[in-house]
Amino acid sequence: MKAFASDNYSGIHPEILEAISDANLSHAVSYGDDAITARANALFEHLFGPVKTLYTFNGTGANVVALKCAALPFQSVICTQFAHIHVDECGAPVQAVGCTLLPLPSPDGKLTPAMVQPLLSAKGNVHHNQPKVISISQSTELGTVYTLDEVRALCDFAHANDMYVHLDGARIANAVAALGTGLKEATVDCGVDIMSFGGTKNGLMIGEAVLIFNNELKQHADYYHKQSAQLFSKNRFIAAQFVALLSNDLWKRMALHANAMAQLLASEVSKIEGVTVTRPTDANGVFAIIPPEAIEPLQKQFRFYVWDESTLELRWMCSFDTTEEEVYGFVAVLKQLIAGLGNV
Amino acid sequence: MKAFASDNYSGIHPEILEAISDANLSHAVSYGDDAITARANALFEHLFGPVKTLYTFNGTGANVVALKCAALPFQSVICTQFAHIHVDECGAPVQAVGCTLLPLPSPDGKLTPAMVQPLLSAKGNVHHNQPKVISISQSTELGTVYTLDEVRALCDFAHANDMYVHLDGARIANAVAALGTGLKEATVDCGVDIMSFGGTKNGLMIGEAVLIFNNELKQHADYYHKQSAQLFSKNRFIAAQFVALLSNDLWKRMALHANAMAQLLASEVSKIEGVTVTRPTDANGVFAIIPPEAIEPLQKQFRFYVWDESTLELRWMCSFDTTEEEVYGFVAVLKQLIAGLGNV
Amino acid sequence: MKAFASDNYSGIHPEILEAISDANLSHAVSYGDDAITARANALFEHLFGPVKTLYTFNGTGANVVALKCAALPFQSVICTQFAHIHVDECGAPVQAVGCTLLPLPSPDGKLTPAMVQPLLSAKGNVHHNQPKVISISQSTELGTVYTLDEVRALCDFAHANDMYVHLDGARIANAVAALGTGLKEATVDCGVDIMSFGGTKNGLMIGEAVLIFNNELKQHADYYHKQSAQLFSKNRFIAAQFVALLSNDLWKRMALHANAMAQLLASEVSKIEGVTVTRPTDANGVFAIIPPEAIEPLQKQFRFYVWDESTLELRWMCSFDTTEEEVYGFVAVLKQLIAGLGNV
Amino acid sequence: MKAFASDNYSGIHPEILEAISDANLSHAVSYGDDAITARANALFEHLFGPVKTLYTFNGTGANVVALKCAALPFQSVICTQFAHIHVDECGAPVQAVGCTLLPLPSPDGKLTPAMVQPLLSAKGNVHHNQPKVISISQSTELGTVYTLDEVRALCDFAHANDMYVHLDGARIANAVAALGTGLKEATVDCGVDIMSFGGTKNGLMIGEAVLIFNNELKQHADYYHKQSAQLFSKNRFIAAQFVALLSNDLWKRMALHANAMAQLLASEVSKIEGVTVTRPTDANGVFAIIPPEAIEPLQKQFRFYVWDESTLELRWMCSFDTTEEEVYGFVAVLKQLIAGLGNV
Repeated sequence: MKAFASDNYSGIHPEILEAISDANLSHAVSYGDDAITARANALFEHLFGPVKTLYTFNGTGANVVALKCAALPFQSVICTQFAHIHVDECGAPVQAVGCTLLPLPSPDGKLTPAMVQPLLSAKGNVHHNQPKVISISQSTELGTVYTLDEVRALCDFAHANDMYVHLDGARIANAVAALGTGLKEATVDCGVDIMSFGGTKNGLMIGEAVLIFNNELKQHADYYHKQSAQLFSKNRFIAAQFVALLSNDLWKRMALHANAMAQLLASEVSKIEGVTVTRPTDANGVFAIIPPEAIEPLQKQFRFYVWDESTLELRWMCSFDTTEEEVYGFVAVLKQLIAGLGNV
Repeated sequence: MKAFASDNYSGIHPEILEAISDANLSHAVSYGDDAITARANALFEHLFGPVKTLYTFNGTGANVVALKCAALPFQSVICTQFAHIHVDECGAPVQAVGCTLLPLPSPDGKLTPAMVQPLLSAKGNVHHNQPKVISISQSTELGTVYTLDEVRALCDFAHANDMYVHLDGARIANAVAALGTGLKEATVDCGVDIMSFGGTKNGLMIGEAVLIFNNELKQHADYYHKQSAQLFSKNRFIAAQFVALLSNDLWKRMALHANAMAQLLASEVSKIEGVTVTRPTDANGVFAIIPPEAIEPLQKQFRFYVWDESTLELRWMCSFDTTEEEVYGFVAVLKQLIAGLGNV
Repeated sequence: MKAFASDNYSGIHPEILEAISDANLSHAVSYGDDAITARANALFEHLFGPVKTLYTFNGTGANVVALKCAALPFQSVICTQFAHIHVDECGAPVQAVGCTLLPLPSPDGKLTPAMVQPLLSAKGNVHHNQPKVISISQSTELGTVYTLDEVRALCDFAHANDMYVHLDGARIANAVAALGTGLKEATVDCGVDIMSFGGTKNGLMIGEAVLIFNNELKQHADYYHKQSAQLFSKNRFIAAQFVALLSNDLWKRMALHANAMAQLLASEVSKIEGVTVTRPTDANGVFAIIPPEAIEPLQKQFRFYVWDESTLELRWMCSFDTTEEEVYGFVAVLKQLIAGLGNV
Repeated sequence: MKAFASDNYSGIHPEILEAISDANLSHAVSYGDDAITARANALFEHLFGPVKTLYTFNGTGANVVALKCAALPFQSVICTQFAHIHVDECGAPVQAVGCTLLPLPSPDGKLTPAMVQPLLSAKGNVHHNQPKVISISQSTELGTVYTLDEVRALCDFAHANDMYVHLDGARIANAVAALGTGLKEATVDCGVDIMSFGGTKNGLMIGEAVLIFNNELKQHADYYHKQSAQLFSKNRFIAAQFVALLSNDLWKRMALHANAMAQLLASEVSKIEGVTVTRPTDANGVFAIIPPEAIEPLQKQFRFYVWDESTLELRWMCSFDTTEEEVYGFVAVLKQLIAGLGNV
């Protein structure tokens, strides 16, 4: 049974699995001093320009390492109320850095300079945490995608105020595929200082990366990486996956497919009476409201989350391995369930 | 080129790689609520008796999670001066828990109750960190193995003083294989409260586990696990490796082999004039002193670490995939190098 | 020049200063094992019933120690957006505990069970910080005072949900004086588990106390106290101040006076056209809006803070040593300034 | 009953108490923005040259703030096994900074470059905490005093290795009085980067200061100060004490007196058969061994600590208010007790 619960329910893309297998030749120097890691590093440089790359195990680990590089305990990190770092990491960044997160309400999962501006009155006042990092998710937790201009505006604003921008890119591939740009144009070229680059939700077995563009943030990065328990002895097996991911546009092929499946799903469910797609389907997530009585029966056949318990808004995620048949199958079941309700 | 630098230079055992591949069928519930993780849990229960199992990415992560479960910030963790948690984790446990490590000098990498006893005078004195955990490594960082009686004595001592015993079992398989007992007899039956169970150094691609035997330490474990960034979304791919490791005695077969290779290596180098094996070869590590002039030329052909810069004691580790040919090849080169020195 | 900026601008009440002087007789055992500390402890027991008392240096220190006793790093502390622990302590509690603060919007500086309820959906979900403490300020940062019923409702709600209530009582004397009850009735009898008891803002030279009523929170309290750098060697000089404060109702006399001065101030400024008192003057703080052009000239003669930069709401605090003459003098100047504006 | 237990058993010097009283005139701006704090700052500048001064409540607080300024979580602080920061602060610096302390054995409570040198092999190795701070106590916990050359050698060594020197000066006055130099010559002129300047043990009611000489450590100091709960609202009452302490050489007069009393005590007890003074009496502490049977009876009349439970070495501290009569009284009792033992 395929699920629409999360892109992290998905498996390993065959090319990724093959890359792991191919890397299993013999002994190699540990902790990233091996040839495969060097090759992955080179590929990141090729795609992003000058960058310091740190491989991590999971998204929380990547965000923790990135925020340790960017913030000190007396500073604050500004994000939206929906941010993964605020909601879904059991407080890991706060505990690891010692800093305070300032989550802002947001209608669409995005931040704007105007939303951040009022918080800057804390600057220079020793009684308040000092705003230092704006952390955005791209694509957002609400399935929306920042435009390049929106990212650039935030970065310019941050830099003008002696702050950094962290981009949580657990789904950066989906965002960039949707934008139709290159990875570099959508991140460092907009001014992003440091980012978490997602792998697990886009076909990897395991692995994320922290990409550091701003030299100021590179200084202690290796130590924060190690002390956060995110440095892997057999790193070649994570690096090999990234080599495959970044070669032959595999990252983009998978992301485009997941996005297309989400578009298809959104388009098809929109045709069903009683179903409302509640947000723009910019990337690979569809948010919708359906007749409440249909939720439980639908969940008996397909896994997914009720995103908002108060409004009963649902979230359906597509991934690299979602098929058209699965989408149509899901839509058919939903249609039938709602029709069944009407009959009662 | 095979190396004797560390067992973490090794690759993935074919049975483990196959298990990963076999697990890559379809979607599965994330964060360990899947069937393969359930099976791995059952296997740990089968081997250890009642146990709460948490899967982690690496050994530092396992130790951090275990010590978070066992110690509060005002307490102290007692270990040897060689302990991996003190020397090799960039202070991760200290930073994560906030507690203090008290590393004791030890001739053989082991602790005894007599060594710990004097530290208990701090008990009840608010000015001092409160001793709460005795952390031992099995096998030790010096390649020695605690006997069951030694472990039991420490556990009895700890419990009599309201303390816990943590066992860093990055190489527990090698130790238990050497002891010729079962996993349960060597750990929980001796009184160990919580342990890190190593996988990466014994044939896994990636993965360790925290095994919690003492119910007092289970209460908050899931949250410490998550907050430490060690909970994996696609956990089935770590669990599948443990299923393979714990089935058909694969863990023991690999450990016995690595130990046998270390025995062979120790025995063969002992025959070379000018080479002294400096410690008992209880598990899979050989410590030795060779003529200083031979070190650098030897390192040009085989990777290994100088363990002690002041004495130039060397460490050679064997792993599941070390072959007899490699051992004999290494011995031959060493012999030749030393002979060459004699000629000069 | 007297100020209406904060009650912490005030000096030392003569009876307090005398107590310090009287305590300066000879040597005494340090760290609270002295007779004066014992007497202060007994007075707290007399006023509150069974209680563990820890003396601290400042309010931030008291809050840090209290929250360390009540929360673990993976838990969360719920407060209002105005809470001193969230806004005014540079993130000290977050950094010290490692937990997350969840600040809620509040119209009047108070929390209610209904406001907290939605956050409880996080309970048992390992991805979210676990709600564990409700922290309220009494009197609040907006000058309002919880009724006993309101405190009791929050405590009952907290306990029904396996949570604790922390009361930040930097101004508890003002609140209890306003309520016209005893200290015990207003705190532990309502179910408060742990509180910070303010001294500095009510006539002390220096000193606060953490009062622990719930036995579960006493277990490690002495160590958290020491490790937070809040245990004082010459504690008798803090304790002596509390002995004076708690004797002969000095705490209440001072608080009643400060409250009365605030009432007078609120009442008098209300009579001035163009001045709006914006909040109930429950305790010793007056919040008001005046013609914007009058703010700066008024600040040239009296210190006070603009509470809200967006609405230009002002805060005027009265303290134990505010005099009627000062209030009338302030009112006269304000009146004159506003009249002068009219002339232009 | 006067005690020889610790200089923190002592009271408040009359000139200090008078300064507190004199400061209690009216309202003043809080958090150090007042005239008395400005005057104390100017006095520190006068005595030490350019310096950033932060006032703290106690010695642990001063050390925590200083080490936060100087070390990051992945770094290490090197001290002796006797260091107050390691032994007597319940792990406060470790918990607050997240760093690791590396306590070294020392025969006399002092560090030397040769002792620190071996630890530098960790530099640049991501697996090890990075040595960053050498923390020395002056005078030491063993009553000894570093010469200027010894301090200078450590500072030169530290700076040559990209490290800082922190001086825990809880008893700096006693050390400088013993050295016969000025405060500046003994600290910043030797290269000390940051220090804790003790007040409580030298006649203050309450108060310590962190003095920052190295500009690199000043950048975030105010925020670390506040976040450590060491910034005082009514700071003028701490500052006033320092104004008195630093005026008219009061600091030196008190320290010279305490040192002289220790000299007298050491000299007098040395004359008693069966008593051995075990360490040089450089400052205000006397260490001695007496017949074991005399310890308990002596403690019935005078408070003091058994410094070393294994050797039964005792510690007797003198303070600014120790009198000659008290010393002679103590010596007489000790003499009598030992004579009594002889009779048995």
